[in-house]
Amino acid sequence: MRIFVDFGPRDAAFELLMAGTAGHELVFPQRATASVLETGTVDPAFRDIDIAFGQPPVEAVTGEAKLRWIQASTAGITRYDTLSFRRLLRERGVVMTNSSSVYAEPCAAHALAFLLAHERQLVSGLQTITPNGSPAWNGLRAASGTLRGRKVLIVGFGSIARILAAMLEPHGAVVLGYRRQPRGDEGVTMVDDAGLSAALAEADHVVNILPDHPDTAQFFGAARLGLMRPGAAFHNIGRGTTVDQRALAAALNGGRLAAAWLDVTEPEPLPADHPLRLAQHCHITPHTAGGHGAEQVTLVRHFLDNLRRFEAGEPLRDRVE
Amino acid sequence: MRIFVDFGPRDAAFELLMAGTAGHELVFPQRATASVLETGTVDPAFRDIDIAFGQPPVEAVTGEAKLRWIQASTAGITRYDTLSFRRLLRERGVVMTNSSSVYAEPCAAHALAFLLAHERQLVSGLQTITPNGSPAWNGLRAASGTLRGRKVLIVGFGSIARILAAMLEPHGAVVLGYRRQPRGDEGVTMVDDAGLSAALAEADHVVNILPDHPDTAQFFGAARLGLMRPGAAFHNIGRGTTVDQRALAAALNGGRLAAAWLDVTEPEPLPADHPLRLAQHCHITPHTAGGHGAEQVTLVRHFLDNLRRFEAGEPLRDRVE
Repeated sequence: MRIFVDFGPRDAAFELLMAGTAGHELVFPQRATASVLETGTVDPAFRDIDIAFGQPPVEAVTGEAKLRWIQASTAGITRYDTLSFRRLLRERGVVMTNSSSVYAEPCAAHALAFLLAHERQLVSGLQTITPNGSPAWNGLRAASGTLRGRKVLIVGFGSIARILAAMLEPHGAVVLGYRRQPRGDEGVTMVDDAGLSAALAEADHVVNILPDHPDTAQFFGAARLGLMRPGAAFHNIGRGTTVDQRALAAALNGGRLAAAWLDVTEPEPLPADHPLRLAQHCHITPHTAGGHGAEQVTLVRHFLDNLRRFEAGEPLRDRVE
Repeated sequence: MRIFVDFGPRDAAFELLMAGTAGHELVFPQRATASVLETGTVDPAFRDIDIAFGQPPVEAVTGEAKLRWIQASTAGITRYDTLSFRRLLRERGVVMTNSSSVYAEPCAAHALAFLLAHERQLVSGLQTITPNGSPAWNGLRAASGTLRGRKVLIVGFGSIARILAAMLEPHGAVVLGYRRQPRGDEGVTMVDDAGLSAALAEADHVVNILPDHPDTAQFFGAARLGLMRPGAAFHNIGRGTTVDQRALAAALNGGRLAAAWLDVTEPEPLPADHPLRLAQHCHITPHTAGGHGAEQVTLVRHFLDNLRRFEAGEPLRDRVE
């Protein structure tokens, strides 16, 4: 089979991919690719492809008759998440998988790092030099907390949320979940659209893991941010487009929200003079939540595992429904 | 009974203490007290005391014939942890308890915040503005990790460690423990003195929770720090006296250790020009690990619970053996 690979595997990941696909033909793009968020044009190398592994442009997929399986090298699949593309895949019998399980655990760990950094006042603590017993010290200790009894609302309850909920368990947090279509196997109390307002009003931490999609655009606008409990913290490890960033900056500067912890923004990176960069208690990491040392190798392992399943006619992992 | 209280309860904690000890006589010091780490002199109010709740100076306890129970308002009990004082307590039939369970969970959460901040590169991430896909971005993502498969060695395996080990469970970390006298109920693999060197050489994270004691002075000296795996991280939420701070600074500046995350130092705070303040990748919070918003209230609740047990002749919680 001809396998098109355009996520730029390096070093050990490249070698593992070469070894694991022996017997197949690997095809690499002739032009350098950028982020999945960029609209691509069809690479000349993309023709007569059986399998695409990476971030193939929608246009390329449309024109390929032989294509049977696309494995996105990302968790987010914004560009493919349209009715017309899904219909095309169905009509052609093309299977689509993503790599969400590769990123789910580091993303969950990143979110928990945010929650704990907030509770333990890590940012101010690391900057404070004060004697034990001083007013500043008493203030810092009093502002510190644990997650015991804290209500954590996870919006966009998928594979990351599932792991995060398990990580929160020994902390004694009360976890609530929200997703468009609950499946009943989430393992935490799920709220529906009607219950979301009440949950927002109660949560100490709101963790946003919503994907980029027309339906989720500015999901956290002024209205929903305004429902949040005063003093609560807002976290985003989903996509920046799901938040009205000016409304968030206003909620922070007005003191209604205690802090925002964001791994994603729109655009990335935010310009230095963006209101959110200047907002108080706004902590931003540069879209590193899914990152981990062996990232590319894990990505290739995940693909090779699916390749074996594909050849054996078994169900693929991380299938996009 | 006359109950001497010298930890300075404020507001809700004071009111709860007053209400919960109705029928007893509360005695407060005539002079302001400072940290437990300071050697005190006997307060004039400390006489004919039945119960002491706080940080009574050793000298006061020695001179009191009626005293039957001391509840330290701290987890560390350095000043009382001597052979002669323990003998005195035994001879007089004085029970000693501490407040370790009040601080154990926030301390464990603080330690996990350190571990996750390290794995997720939180300090550099929060300072980095870089486009997705840039060399700086790839570097930051590659330097990020999770705790899955990471070896975490906890030195000083008591109540904090037990909670930390439970918190580490869903992260897939491999936890090893060390304590002077293992009890067999630690729930993790314990190493003895002979095994400690090998464990230090293997651990990705060494979490030091040793108390201040002549036996633990500079426990982490140049020798033990030198045994640590290159690239490992050192954490201290025990006491600063247990570390040779110049040796730690050298290990950091030499690049042998990836980072130090310290909540305790000697002295506190460290002077601005101390080698450890200037050492690379040395992150210091100002002894806030045990802090939490309801700290004083929890402390009083813990005391009142023990007071009820004391009056009923039941075993006290957090008894020092």
